[in-house]
Amino acid sequence: MKRKVFFLSDSTGMTAENLGRSLLTQFTQIRFESVTKPFIDTPEKAQRVASEINREAKKLPDRPLVIDTIVDSEVSQIIKQTDSFHIDIFSTFLEPLEKELGVHSSHTVGHPAIFNENGHSVDKAYMQRIEAIHYALANDDGMQVHRYSDADIILIGVSRTGKTPSSVYLGMQFGIKAANYPLIPDDLESITLPAALVSHKKKLFGLTIRAGRLAEIRNERKPNSHYANLRNCIDELRQAEMLYRQHRIPYIDTTQLSIEEISARMLQRAGIERRVSSL
Amino acid sequence: MKRKVFFLSDSTGMTAENLGRSLLTQFTQIRFESVTKPFIDTPEKAQRVASEINREAKKLPDRPLVIDTIVDSEVSQIIKQTDSFHIDIFSTFLEPLEKELGVHSSHTVGHPAIFNENGHSVDKAYMQRIEAIHYALANDDGMQVHRYSDADIILIGVSRTGKTPSSVYLGMQFGIKAANYPLIPDDLESITLPAALVSHKKKLFGLTIRAGRLAEIRNERKPNSHYANLRNCIDELRQAEMLYRQHRIPYIDTTQLSIEEISARMLQRAGIERRVSSL
Repeated sequence: MKRKVFFLSDSTGMTAENLGRSLLTQFTQIRFESVTKPFIDTPEKAQRVASEINREAKKLPDRPLVIDTIVDSEVSQIIKQTDSFHIDIFSTFLEPLEKELGVHSSHTVGHPAIFNENGHSVDKAYMQRIEAIHYALANDDGMQVHRYSDADIILIGVSRTGKTPSSVYLGMQFGIKAANYPLIPDDLESITLPAALVSHKKKLFGLTIRAGRLAEIRNERKPNSHYANLRNCIDELRQAEMLYRQHRIPYIDTTQLSIEEISARMLQRAGIERRVSSL
Repeated sequence: MKRKVFFLSDSTGMTAENLGRSLLTQFTQIRFESVTKPFIDTPEKAQRVASEINREAKKLPDRPLVIDTIVDSEVSQIIKQTDSFHIDIFSTFLEPLEKELGVHSSHTVGHPAIFNENGHSVDKAYMQRIEAIHYALANDDGMQVHRYSDADIILIGVSRTGKTPSSVYLGMQFGIKAANYPLIPDDLESITLPAALVSHKKKLFGLTIRAGRLAEIRNERKPNSHYANLRNCIDELRQAEMLYRQHRIPYIDTTQLSIEEISARMLQRAGIERRVSSL
């Protein structure tokens, strides 16, 4: 039996979705079927969603769960009257916050201006994120080693340890410029730091992974290759880890971690501050 | 006067940070200074953070705000006893949810297994995200047009309208494979759809932007060039929009939108379901 969940928002829906999913993963006994409805920012749109929620409530044995981050009180009231179990994230916390801060909240759909009327950038942090994403793409896979002086962090590791997704995420989420450089068999056998990296040693962060997992990932790309061979994966990883230890490069095992966790742990270990964060 | 904010989490801290920032942007009168403390997952770590919070409380005229998503009750209790205004997101909602669902929550740090003990993938959705990120990078800027049959959506537009960051975000956040293809002056002058795109017309989504903003962005890259010239930007955008209308390609003006908003709106307009979402 699945329980129906609606994530509602007057903006992108990401906050309702993220928080909602974090809460629902605590209930492993129940299967949830969720749908996200972003940009519910007028009473008319709210009415349409309310009808949909009520239809589901009639159809199913259990009333739907509704998790929303709607700020506008007229819109919010319409959702409140549906036949649902309703978690209204904003109004739950805004009132106590208003009391604590001694001011009224603006009660406006919460996204900061990115550009002003004339299209000039007002949000420096946002532009930093965009720039950092472009940086991660341009500096993926050892492509532009001459730009490493601009990097905040340089991820190194053998092929398919998670360098690319982590670099992109660091830029996207935190505005951090992450380059990444692949350790290839030549570097590994001699256990020497590639020439391009020597002068940026303080920025290096190593990734490693369990050999069985690496062989599996590589097999999906190049089945039955030397590249994907378990013995080869074991050797490459052993040499990479030896390189990290020899040069005192901090490193992390990514086997059981998501991109979000790899990135958050790296920043913590490297002592890099989260510069910006998306809303 | 700045008000100090702590975002605490036993995991990456993203949920506390995202929700916290959404709430705090409602108080435009107050300046906040925030710090995120991820992976607070033992009583010892909690004690250290608690001491830091209490030190800040002594130093500042107003007690700090603490916004947390800590699940473990022993850890949570330590934070609760600090001299702060405390928003405990999980316990606020978990108890009413337990009642509604008629079961107890697992009260474990909420991240789903990505790989099992042997490193085999158990989370298909997660692997889809990783694959979609790699797809976005490999299919950036018209690089691999022969792989367009795998695309869920193909973003088109003139240079610097936001195609690349949006493609990467769609993969990262939703596991959606987004390619992107730049419209160049040759295509634009003839107002013809580039040959590589003709057979994928249904997947196309256009981006546009205000000319003044585009000129500004391009000027940062190539100052005083024909490329960045306002007149040229006006012409390119007019031709691109004509192309969209002529071929009935849906399009969106990205001038005032963040990557998150562009992506959420595109999915909505294109009727593409959010396949997966990060936790």
